[in-house]
Amino acid sequence: VLVDGVARRTIGFGDDGSVEVIDQTRLPHEFAVARWYTVSDAARGITTMQVRGAPLIGVAAAHGLALAMDDDPSDTGLAAAARLLVATRPTAVNLAWAVTLVRDRLSPLAPGERPAVARAVARELADADVVACRAIGDTGAPLLVEAAAEAADGTAHVMTHCNAGWLATVDWGTALAPVYRAHDDGVPVHVWVSETRPRNQGSALTAWELGAHGVPHTVVADNACGHLLATGPVGLCLVGADRVAANGDVANKVGTYLKALAAAAHRVPFYVAAPISTLDPSTPHGAAIAIEERDGEEVHTIAGVAADGSTRLVRLTPAAAVARNWAFDVTPAALVSAIVTERGIVPASHDGVRAATAR
Amino acid sequence: VLVDGVARRTIGFGDDGSVEVIDQTRLPHEFAVARWYTVSDAARGITTMQVRGAPLIGVAAAHGLALAMDDDPSDTGLAAAARLLVATRPTAVNLAWAVTLVRDRLSPLAPGERPAVARAVARELADADVVACRAIGDTGAPLLVEAAAEAADGTAHVMTHCNAGWLATVDWGTALAPVYRAHDDGVPVHVWVSETRPRNQGSALTAWELGAHGVPHTVVADNACGHLLATGPVGLCLVGADRVAANGDVANKVGTYLKALAAAAHRVPFYVAAPISTLDPSTPHGAAIAIEERDGEEVHTIAGVAADGSTRLVRLTPAAAVARNWAFDVTPAALVSAIVTERGIVPASHDGVRAATAR
Repeated sequence: VLVDGVARRTIGFGDDGSVEVIDQTRLPHEFAVARWYTVSDAARGITTMQVRGAPLIGVAAAHGLALAMDDDPSDTGLAAAARLLVATRPTAVNLAWAVTLVRDRLSPLAPGERPAVARAVARELADADVVACRAIGDTGAPLLVEAAAEAADGTAHVMTHCNAGWLATVDWGTALAPVYRAHDDGVPVHVWVSETRPRNQGSALTAWELGAHGVPHTVVADNACGHLLATGPVGLCLVGADRVAANGDVANKVGTYLKALAAAAHRVPFYVAAPISTLDPSTPHGAAIAIEERDGEEVHTIAGVAADGSTRLVRLTPAAAVARNWAFDVTPAALVSAIVTERGIVPASHDGVRAATAR
Repeated sequence: VLVDGVARRTIGFGDDGSVEVIDQTRLPHEFAVARWYTVSDAARGITTMQVRGAPLIGVAAAHGLALAMDDDPSDTGLAAAARLLVATRPTAVNLAWAVTLVRDRLSPLAPGERPAVARAVARELADADVVACRAIGDTGAPLLVEAAAEAADGTAHVMTHCNAGWLATVDWGTALAPVYRAHDDGVPVHVWVSETRPRNQGSALTAWELGAHGVPHTVVADNACGHLLATGPVGLCLVGADRVAANGDVANKVGTYLKALAAAAHRVPFYVAAPISTLDPSTPHGAAIAIEERDGEEVHTIAGVAADGSTRLVRLTPAAAVARNWAFDVTPAALVSAIVTERGIVPASHDGVRAATAR
C-alpha cells in the first residue's frame, strides 16, 4: 500500500541488518519508522504495540528470532528467544505459530547456519502473509459487490472494528483486504470505523489507512454500533481475528462480540477475515482461549495531539479510580456468518475449521 | 450527597438570584460551580452539558424559565423561553415535561406574579426529584440485596452505563440510587463503570461520584462489557433512561442497547431506573423517539489532564477524518427486565407504562 506515494510494508530488514517497522504507537499523527536491533527490542515492540495485529505480530516474532540468531545462534539462544517472544502476547495464535515454524526450520541446522536462514524464513513469512492477504481480498470482495447491489444507495456499507487493515499484517490486511480490492475495482464502498477503545486502533489506524488509500469512511464511537446496526445503513460487518478455535468461536479485539450480537439481532451478515494461520484446531472452543488483560493505564489515559501540535498523554479518570482492561473477547461461532480466508469462504464450525486446516 | 464533607445538590438558586450548577464539563479533575444569569446561559449550559442527565435537565430547564421571567415575564417572553429550552436537547422527555409543567403554572398568572412563582415551581421540581430518586433507591435496593445473596463472593456486582447517579439528577440519582441505598445499608456492592465514549460520563462522572461516596467500582472500556457479561461476575445491569416509550422501549445513552443484548445472551437481569416523569405514553415505541446527533468533534477530540496538571483537549483521529455522533440508542422492551421507579417496579410493557402513568 502507498504512503505519500511510496510503496510500504509494515515490517522488513533495513540495510544495516536491523528490523524496520512502522511505529503504530505514533499514528495517526506521525508516520515514523522504529528500528529493532535485538530480540529484546522486538519483544518490547510487540508488547508495547509498535506492531500489532495477529498476522503482523507473527511475522514480527519471526524477525525477532532472526535478530536473536545474530546474537546467540545456539540451541539455548534459540529456545530463550522463542520463549521471550511467545510470552509477549497470549491471545493471537499467529505468534506461537510463527515462532514454532521458524524454530522447526532452525533447530536441525548448525548454529553457524542459523542467522542467514532465520532471515530468509522471516522474509518468506512476510511474503507469504502478503500473498495470503491479497487472496483474502479476492475471497471477500464479492461480498461487498453483493452488498452494494442490495443497498438502496448502491454502496457497500461495511462495519469493521479495531484495525484489521494492512497495518495489522505485512500488506493489504485481513478484514480490509476485500475493502481495498472492491474499492480498487470501482465498487462504491463506505466503511464505518468504530474507534476501538481503549487503544483506538479504529480511529487512529483504520481511519488513517483508509484515508491514505482514499476509501470513504466515518468514525463512530464503539457505543454507536448498536444504533447503527439497528437503523443502518450497514450491509455487512467484516472484522479480523486473533484466534479461531476448532469449533469456529472467534477471539478478536474486545468489543467484537457486542457488534456480533447486534448484527445477529438485525440480520446483518457478520464475517471474520483471517489467514488460515489464525485457525487453531488445537483450541477446542472460545472459552479455552487465553484473553490477554493489559494495563489499566490504557483505560485511564489516552494520547492525542494538543492544539499546539504536541502529542500529550491525558488522564480521563479520577486519580483514585481502578480500571480493568481485557484486550479481546470471544464471539461464538453461531454469530459468525463465515470466515473469509485465502483458501475461500470457511464455515465457522468444526467441519469448516477441520477442512480448512487439513493439509 | 457529600462532596468534601459538604452536602451538595447539582442545582439551586444562589444568593444573588442566579442559578448555580455543578459544572460537569470540569469533572472529574475539578469541582467547579457555574452560574447562569439568563435563560440563554441556561440553554447554553444544557446544550454544552454543564448539566446533563434526563431528570436534571428537566429541573435545569425549570430554573432557566425562572431566569427568563426575571427578564421578560410576558406571554411572549414565556413562550420564547420555553421554545429555546425545549430545543436544547431532543431525546430526554423530562425536559419538555418540566417546561410544560412550569408553563402551565405560569400562564394563568399576571406577568408581575410570574418571577416569584417560577422560582417556587423550580424549587418544587428540584425537591420532588430528590424525593423521587430516594424512592427509586428504596425500590431498587432489594435487587442488589438479592444479587449479593446469589453471588459467589457475596457482593452485588452491578454493571451501569453513562452516569445515572446524583449528578444526573438533583440528588441520589436514578440507577445509582439503589446502589447508594444498598451500600449505605451495608450490602457489599461493586459497580462496573463503562467509560461511555464519546463524553466519558462513566469514567469521568460515575467513577468520580462513586469514589466520593466510597462505593467500590472498576472502570472498563465500553467494549469490555460483552466479555464481562459473558464471564462475570455481573449480578445485574442497572442503567438510567432518557425516555421510556408507551410499549416499554427505552432510549438511553448510546451503548446501552449493546449491553442489553449481551445481558440477555447471558441471562443477566437488565433493569432501567427512572422517575415516572421519564415514562412517555405519548410516544408509541422506540423508533418514534428522536435520537439526538451531536457534533462529531466529541468523537475526534477528548479532554483530560496532562502530566503538567493542565487540562488539554487532544485530537484522536486523523485530521481529515469524518465522524458521526449519535448520543442515544433504543433498547427494545423485550430486553428490559423491568423499570425501577419511585412508585415501584414497573414492567417494561404497554400495560406497565399505562398503569404507572395513569393518575
